[in-house]
Amino acid sequence: MKKILILGAGRSASTLIEYLLKVASISDYEVTVADTSLDLAQQKTKNHPKSRAIALDTNDETKTREEIQRADLVVSMLPAFLHPAIAKQCVKFKKNMVTASYVSPEMKALDEEAKKAGIILMNESGLDPGIDHASAMKIIDHIKAQCGKLTSFKSYTGGLIAPESDDNPWGYKFTWAPKNVILAGQGTAKYLENGKFAFIPYHKLFTRTEPISIDGYGDFEGYANRDSISYRSVYGIEDVQTLLRGTLRKEGYCEAWNVFVQLGMTDDTYIIPNSEELTNKEFLELFLPLEKEDTETRLLDYLGHEMNNEILYKLEWLGLFGDAKLGVKNATPAMMLQTLLEEKWKLKDGDIDMIVMQHQFEYEMPKKDKTNDGKRHGGDRSVTKHKIESSLVVKGDDAIHTAMAKTVGLPVGIITKLILEGNIKLTGVQIPTVKEIYLLLLEELEGLGVRFVEKER
Amino acid sequence: MKKILILGAGRSASTLIEYLLKVASISDYEVTVADTSLDLAQQKTKNHPKSRAIALDTNDETKTREEIQRADLVVSMLPAFLHPAIAKQCVKFKKNMVTASYVSPEMKALDEEAKKAGIILMNESGLDPGIDHASAMKIIDHIKAQCGKLTSFKSYTGGLIAPESDDNPWGYKFTWAPKNVILAGQGTAKYLENGKFAFIPYHKLFTRTEPISIDGYGDFEGYANRDSISYRSVYGIEDVQTLLRGTLRKEGYCEAWNVFVQLGMTDDTYIIPNSEELTNKEFLELFLPLEKEDTETRLLDYLGHEMNNEILYKLEWLGLFGDAKLGVKNATPAMMLQTLLEEKWKLKDGDIDMIVMQHQFEYEMPKKDKTNDGKRHGGDRSVTKHKIESSLVVKGDDAIHTAMAKTVGLPVGIITKLILEGNIKLTGVQIPTVKEIYLLLLEELEGLGVRFVEKER
Repeated sequence: MKKILILGAGRSASTLIEYLLKVASISDYEVTVADTSLDLAQQKTKNHPKSRAIALDTNDETKTREEIQRADLVVSMLPAFLHPAIAKQCVKFKKNMVTASYVSPEMKALDEEAKKAGIILMNESGLDPGIDHASAMKIIDHIKAQCGKLTSFKSYTGGLIAPESDDNPWGYKFTWAPKNVILAGQGTAKYLENGKFAFIPYHKLFTRTEPISIDGYGDFEGYANRDSISYRSVYGIEDVQTLLRGTLRKEGYCEAWNVFVQLGMTDDTYIIPNSEELTNKEFLELFLPLEKEDTETRLLDYLGHEMNNEILYKLEWLGLFGDAKLGVKNATPAMMLQTLLEEKWKLKDGDIDMIVMQHQFEYEMPKKDKTNDGKRHGGDRSVTKHKIESSLVVKGDDAIHTAMAKTVGLPVGIITKLILEGNIKLTGVQIPTVKEIYLLLLEELEGLGVRFVEKER
Repeated sequence: MKKILILGAGRSASTLIEYLLKVASISDYEVTVADTSLDLAQQKTKNHPKSRAIALDTNDETKTREEIQRADLVVSMLPAFLHPAIAKQCVKFKKNMVTASYVSPEMKALDEEAKKAGIILMNESGLDPGIDHASAMKIIDHIKAQCGKLTSFKSYTGGLIAPESDDNPWGYKFTWAPKNVILAGQGTAKYLENGKFAFIPYHKLFTRTEPISIDGYGDFEGYANRDSISYRSVYGIEDVQTLLRGTLRKEGYCEAWNVFVQLGMTDDTYIIPNSEELTNKEFLELFLPLEKEDTETRLLDYLGHEMNNEILYKLEWLGLFGDAKLGVKNATPAMMLQTLLEEKWKLKDGDIDMIVMQHQFEYEMPKKDKTNDGKRHGGDRSVTKHKIESSLVVKGDDAIHTAMAKTVGLPVGIITKLILEGNIKLTGVQIPTVKEIYLLLLEELEGLGVRFVEKER
């Protein structure tokens, strides 16, 4: 019997646990769900005969070590900073490990030891990072296999609200950690365009979006993520001329969000004195030059061409010009804004979320030679240019089986199963960019309804 | 004989050393100048009979301790982060200490011990901080003494180029550490306006300037420094309604500098790959959206209403659209920009610098009662409103006796003398906001030509 230890039974682990319990029903697996809350662990295992629910605080090193020793594979759904400590135990006791988090430098440093121990430390196995890697690499490798040359790769992902639940002027609700949405994009976005490096400072980011259409789901816009350049080596596409990874929002969101950025309302670096006493309007006025006119006029004057009626309507809908109080003590601007938005962008009963991902590939293929002299004719004429769009849309089923829980939980579960079945024989620190992993992963995801639609243009 | 130990004989110490040697000539003082470079120390002491020039690296704790033990007062012109270690020795051996740097938390923590030891740790004794404190507090205390109520205090300082040496379109040359000029204003500016807190994010800072005129020296503009709010307690003006400290530049500078900020060229947080290969134009293009037009048109399109011909001329004058290469390896955007500007904003032989400082006070005075009933009549009618502008302009004499060296060195020297003469009897961590210090300091500065001109408006 193979024993799986899942650390963390929070919201994002629901679909993962269900999936692995289903697998356990037909295979000789045992699934242990460990959480600081025994109750939460029990809610998730639902007395499944192949399950164990246990209380475990990973600060308790002895008990954690015992549970890791007992298992064949450890899935960590804990916050990412806790992974390296777990990974060290996994190396020590020669247990495989799976996470949905980015490979940290501390994790990376365990590569050689993990290889010596003959185990895999499998990371970035969720949606983004995870499904994005697998689905991109499948097409990239396919182009390479045909002697094609990838010239441009852009990839956008968004955790959004489904159209049927989209009933606010922003086209957005919080379906994921609100704080990450508030702070998204801070720093400098770095990407490649036509062979040149390009840098966008945060205060320009939301003005430099690209329109993205997804058939049947309408118009979106993408803004660049912080670091796209490093994906040249991650994806083995060192010669690519254009490389950009970005985040998707509903059309019109970014120009309105830009107002918060311009004003400084997303700043999380200082506390506003007496923050609990401010009305929404007074919060806004902290960032406006002092003039005699009313608040709206001051805002329009200040941001000038970056404002329009559509944006103003979105801000009014939030109650930003109103006299309600947020009442948050010792709040940064970002905390104040988050409190305001959490109230307005809350999911209603029955609301369902939606994950949208789109990859855009441009590549050149050598032309089949139609003359008889055996020579190619000139630069441009010797290749044909191609474009592929590959899009994924996943909707949530309900408040538990959200699109986010499914697209994070299923790939983690599938990869766990593939490792236990011996279908992934790699060792060391890995991510799902290799054929051995992505082919089987994408195949099973398709069967479960997580399916990319390809469009040649 | 009183022994003064001066640590650091760099550019900013020249006037200080000259001043203290002059004092030593007529008083029973000995001045030791210690620098890692014995040669530099000797250049500054010029074999003055009351001087000693020594080589000293403060990393050599034994020798540093010996020199501190030998002295009666230590003046540290070293980088600010080195001050706390020196201050601890001064406390231990009961020696007074003077610096021109801001009071750091580590320095602040020595207050009680210094008081117990009966010595003064005198900080912020240069220009800004230093002369600004003294000159502001003199007027603030005067208003208070007359039962006046300070309602608004704004104070601006700039290290600039003198009009006779101002021969470039920016009206600016580097007369002080270039890196500080490049990074100036990063973070969030915080101030008070009409009783309300106000916050300006960096990317808006250079668009929110105030015009400042100085009689006979033309038009300037001021942008807000990072933290003005803390000066309520520093100056004991907790009830003030408007409080802003800022930096002065020549009129038109800020709107052009804003272009660098908007583009992200002052970012010092990441390295540009292949930075040494970029031409100036290519450096600029890193920050522009990719379009088919020429670079200037792209810049105009991108920054739109924030551009004008005046700004464009300033940028062209820098050669920003040219094919010259800066050739800096592993450079951040800020380092590239600094290299470009250091070449263009270099002082020529004979160029002289200029320090400009202006305080603006608004206050209310109780009206002398002209009726006989002994009662005041209504809110507004019981006070008269007043405005005072107090301005300082100091020009450099030559490349050694710059305005910056004079306005930093003279107050440090004068305060050192005042302490040695027993005219300042305070102990603990101090700054020149107290009457006991500022009256004598300002009086002697006036005699040396560092004189504020007051204007009642």
